[in-house]
Amino acid sequence: MVVATCLLVLAVLLLTGAKSNITNNKIDDACNLPDDLIKEIRSYEPIVEKIIGATMNGKFKGATYNELTKFVDKFGPRVSGTKNLEDSIDHMLDLLKKNNLDNVHGEEVQVPHWVRGEEEAWILEPRLTNLPVLGLGFSVSTPEEGITAEVLVVKSFEELNQSNFTEKAKGKIIVFNNDYVTYGVSVKYRSLGASRAAEKGGVAALVRSVTNYSQRTLHTGMQSYESGVRKIPVASITVEDARFLQRLQDRGEKIVVKLKLMNVNNKPKTSRNTVSEIKGSQKPEKVVLVSGHLDSWDVGNGAMDDGGGAFISWYSLVVLRALNLTPKRTVRCVLWTGEEFGLTGVIGYNATHANELDNFTFVMESDEGTFTPQGLVYSAGKQGGCILQEVLKLMASINATRAEYGASCGSDISIWTGNGIPGASLLNDAEKYFWYHHSAADTIDVENPDDLDKGLALWASVAYIIADLSLEFPRERVPDSIEGSLLLKALNHHKVSNGN
Amino acid sequence: MVVATCLLVLAVLLLTGAKSNITNNKIDDACNLPDDLIKEIRSYEPIVEKIIGATMNGKFKGATYNELTKFVDKFGPRVSGTKNLEDSIDHMLDLLKKNNLDNVHGEEVQVPHWVRGEEEAWILEPRLTNLPVLGLGFSVSTPEEGITAEVLVVKSFEELNQSNFTEKAKGKIIVFNNDYVTYGVSVKYRSLGASRAAEKGGVAALVRSVTNYSQRTLHTGMQSYESGVRKIPVASITVEDARFLQRLQDRGEKIVVKLKLMNVNNKPKTSRNTVSEIKGSQKPEKVVLVSGHLDSWDVGNGAMDDGGGAFISWYSLVVLRALNLTPKRTVRCVLWTGEEFGLTGVIGYNATHANELDNFTFVMESDEGTFTPQGLVYSAGKQGGCILQEVLKLMASINATRAEYGASCGSDISIWTGNGIPGASLLNDAEKYFWYHHSAADTIDVENPDDLDKGLALWASVAYIIADLSLEFPRERVPDSIEGSLLLKALNHHKVSNGN
Repeated sequence: MVVATCLLVLAVLLLTGAKSNITNNKIDDACNLPDDLIKEIRSYEPIVEKIIGATMNGKFKGATYNELTKFVDKFGPRVSGTKNLEDSIDHMLDLLKKNNLDNVHGEEVQVPHWVRGEEEAWILEPRLTNLPVLGLGFSVSTPEEGITAEVLVVKSFEELNQSNFTEKAKGKIIVFNNDYVTYGVSVKYRSLGASRAAEKGGVAALVRSVTNYSQRTLHTGMQSYESGVRKIPVASITVEDARFLQRLQDRGEKIVVKLKLMNVNNKPKTSRNTVSEIKGSQKPEKVVLVSGHLDSWDVGNGAMDDGGGAFISWYSLVVLRALNLTPKRTVRCVLWTGEEFGLTGVIGYNATHANELDNFTFVMESDEGTFTPQGLVYSAGKQGGCILQEVLKLMASINATRAEYGASCGSDISIWTGNGIPGASLLNDAEKYFWYHHSAADTIDVENPDDLDKGLALWASVAYIIADLSLEFPRERVPDSIEGSLLLKALNHHKVSNGN
Repeated sequence: MVVATCLLVLAVLLLTGAKSNITNNKIDDACNLPDDLIKEIRSYEPIVEKIIGATMNGKFKGATYNELTKFVDKFGPRVSGTKNLEDSIDHMLDLLKKNNLDNVHGEEVQVPHWVRGEEEAWILEPRLTNLPVLGLGFSVSTPEEGITAEVLVVKSFEELNQSNFTEKAKGKIIVFNNDYVTYGVSVKYRSLGASRAAEKGGVAALVRSVTNYSQRTLHTGMQSYESGVRKIPVASITVEDARFLQRLQDRGEKIVVKLKLMNVNNKPKTSRNTVSEIKGSQKPEKVVLVSGHLDSWDVGNGAMDDGGGAFISWYSLVVLRALNLTPKRTVRCVLWTGEEFGLTGVIGYNATHANELDNFTFVMESDEGTFTPQGLVYSAGKQGGCILQEVLKLMASINATRAEYGASCGSDISIWTGNGIPGASLLNDAEKYFWYHHSAADTIDVENPDDLDKGLALWASVAYIIADLSLEFPRERVPDSIEGSLLLKALNHHKVSNGN
């Protein structure tokens, strides 16, 4: 299973990068839901008001933020394969039990265990200066003495493929100074830069951090080595330093860099997806899933990515239980493990629960920030979209009524969305998400108590209503889903191998 | 002279911090300048248009940015006492000569030579985690093995003085977690935190970075040791980490930190203020001074602080010369050295030029950013303020017509402003100045070619007009100047000693 998982893990690297750029379409506004259904959805208004009241002004006001703060303060970063991640999972299992949720348990899965070691780089020519670097996931090490080589800066893969660049690439450290467009567009340099550089004879790759704002900030993340291509060390550099190196090259300066990365790719370790439920009163086998991931990168504290998403998810169940709201179907919360190293947790979960997938009514995930919520990005057919629009009308008092269509939304849940199982991600004011993403700046200071309260209110309300509706949420052909599942597409079209 | 200078140097630490919070007053709008004077000022409109045309659309469009970029790329940080600073001064002297300016020369002055060494801190309890630190100027070292001690977090000096905190301070590492108010208000924790902590028996001090926005960003800066108080090591920590430590303490956690700072305070070195002129055609002994500082902190590249200010200053002379504009009085550019270590350059200059000060018509400095210019912050009497308001009306096309009164404006020039000699600082949209100030993020990426062009146009125009007016710029009593010279006040009221 580990080998298969590893193939899967690396196949979804591109997918992890696909976040946030798939939310541009809007469903046809002309909805023709049956009057009875509209009436039924509107009948949830008192319940939604109760939930909003409890989270915004009542007993749970500020609770998500406070719990999340204590959690990140206690554990800090929670990296795939570490004891600290497992300790934080134990802590969560305790918390879920203490909050009287049903069926609290961990489900084992193998996760990668790549460990960052000493990392250091210096520009030796044209003038000696330190070059801050942050190794990318699965990067191989340099030799102990580092790699010292001339630098070739390129702005894109296309530029690297031009003969005047290609002929200079051999033996060089290749710097990718790609302008930020969107995360989905720009992350390919992080994901594939090492192999593209190695194909041209590069000895290492340095990739400009994927962000739309920098204060000399380093952003790490996963990358994959293509099979059959030499594995070379790869690290991120800051936007500022990438531009600096570009300017030096444009002036005809000879640039020499020394790079040392002492990372270790250990054997996979056992981790756990963390499960809890509000068992359904009438159709307990049917599942509305709410989720976020507990693991994080090793820099920062993973308060935003994905502490906020994980915490509004499990807290939704706490709120429903406390308000004695038990829907007809089961609301299940899964806090994924190993997301940052290739969606490992959800891939293992998907394999174990293959027989249950027919009972997955709706899958929800918050992993693109918990800033001011605006509504949902959903992957569903036309009727499904109309139902969600109607449900979101109940969120008017928290100003979160937008429904945006995204063919295969989410990160972990994209294993299912766009592939027949309807689902949704939290739509929020995530303009600054990539300012902090995978950086040391991902701390609790990014989060805001009010926004978390609103996100929780939305999350709990939507999960409850969909789990309680008389109608089973429709599984329809997803409109314009020419892409199908990005995950399956990745698996089918990218022959990649992992760093083991 | 060195000893005297050192006393002066440290006396002005508070003053360095006084930037940016002295611009709140506005002069009385009721100006009654003689019609002839108004007419004369307005007669400069064609010259101002010529200057604006050359900088915004003509031969100098983008030139300041390009020159500054090449400069910071070539030299990087230019720290007081280093060969690199002296090399950059040699480079500037060459550039000034090449640009055909008058009287180009360096004037020697002694500057501090404090060198940052290995710096590292760890939170050992309640959980092991790295604590990024950045030593403050003149900080003494820890022992080689570091200092390991419990932490006491305080929000203010007032809190530290409360008995329940004071009695806990002995033997502790004191963390100042002061909320940012303004730079002028908040910088006192950086400037004086070490001595305040030592007075209560603290063994080291960690000061929250002085900034209104953080991405886990460290900001360094000068600090002073009060005479008669034990010198303890002092470093900045990030806003996020200061808050984290506060939360741990508020929860009753025992916090233990290990701090290692291996800084060295070497003997002062000889540096130079960099002088160039447009010699006046009729009253060459009269001087309008334009200035900025060439030295910088060791993190970042000093592109903003104060590359931008220095470069619009010397480029003003280049523009005037190229346009063949020779005013009646001399326009002198001085690029200060040693500003970051206590205004050392200007203090030396002031001593050497004591006999010439009567001829200082007007002193200008840009050291609070070269973002979009808005006008001037000035220190002058009522008539002077009215003259500047009239001059700035000519800047309407670049939307930089604001005149704000600041009793003792500027950093280097504050040795003169507010103390009888009229002067002005560049007023600009510096909202984000402290996002980058004294941090690794102070790079050329902060600067903008258009803003530098506008700043240059304003700077060159104002300097030219004041140097050319038939009227000598009035030396009047500065309104509401109850403070007098902040520098003199600092010298009189703060008995401080330096780190030597």
